[in-house]
Amino acid sequence: MARWEPGAKQRLQLAALDLFVEQGFEATTVAQIAGRADLTERTFYRHFADKREVLFDGQDVLLHAFVDAVGSAPDGASPRELAEAAVAGSVAFFTDERRPWSRRRQQAIDTEDGLRERESLKMGVLASAVAQALRDRGVTDPAAELAADAAISVFRVSFGQWIAPGETRDIGDIQAGLFAAQRALA
Amino acid sequence: MARWEPGAKQRLQLAALDLFVEQGFEATTVAQIAGRADLTERTFYRHFADKREVLFDGQDVLLHAFVDAVGSAPDGASPRELAEAAVAGSVAFFTDERRPWSRRRQQAIDTEDGLRERESLKMGVLASAVAQALRDRGVTDPAAELAADAAISVFRVSFGQWIAPGETRDIGDIQAGLFAAQRALA
Repeated sequence: MARWEPGAKQRLQLAALDLFVEQGFEATTVAQIAGRADLTERTFYRHFADKREVLFDGQDVLLHAFVDAVGSAPDGASPRELAEAAVAGSVAFFTDERRPWSRRRQQAIDTEDGLRERESLKMGVLASAVAQALRDRGVTDPAAELAADAAISVFRVSFGQWIAPGETRDIGDIQAGLFAAQRALA
Repeated sequence: MARWEPGAKQRLQLAALDLFVEQGFEATTVAQIAGRADLTERTFYRHFADKREVLFDGQDVLLHAFVDAVGSAPDGASPRELAEAAVAGSVAFFTDERRPWSRRRQQAIDTEDGLRERESLKMGVLASAVAQALRDRGVTDPAAELAADAAISVFRVSFGQWIAPGETRDIGDIQAGLFAAQRALA
């Protein structure tokens, strides 16, 4: 019988991260994750398709935040303003409460080349989605692709800075500085 | 007995591409590739570790072309000039003779999601290598990462344009236009 476990998803995520960091991703089983969270494997599979999804289930939320922000940007926004809006659309996702989790998630990803590759691919998927959102707002290629790549570049670098040890700035402030640095390069 | 087969590597590559496009990458075996090229499997394995390497053995050449071009750029070059030099360093690789091969390679890659992912990862590896080459020339982060990402964005888009049906421009001319478009966006 499916029983609703309050906070089960978060407990499973925290247990999984701890185990991934302690003993590596490959060595960790779903049974161990469920056991550490004091839940059943069946409960695990109600929330996640597999253990890798524990690390990447935020990708869809992020993608929709980017795409929705482009869609709701003001009329007459330039390609660059649309791309910057996409990145700004994700700021609400990266709260100070989330930062310790994001740091630990990165440690877990750094335990396996395959996870680092998956994370790299995620950036490519986000860039393609933003480019399409820009086209849907009437931006033509190659501007759509170039502006989307520029936005994801700032997003990727900002995320790396945001989770650096001791960093306390908001991700939005970090991104504003990076967009300025990017403009200065050009 | 290892016998030197003149042109063996290129014959194997052409045979492999034909088979990948005809019947898909997964369905193609090394035995079929060697047979189509009228060579032995043993000869295949003298040139390639596996069938995937037929598609990606140019990656190292490209990476070194990018990195060497950054290293030999003039003193006092700006981060952006160094990044543009990296991309310009690859122009000699993409000759008109190579274009039909590159188009066919892209068709082969498009037969499998896994190959598309591998190609996407390649861009990430190239971006990391260019960022490191910029740091070696004294560029600090985040400028090194942002400039490297901008260069690889232009490279990726330029390559897509260069292999488009009917395209006849040199890749260097395409890249010059894209760098200008990128500056205009900022």
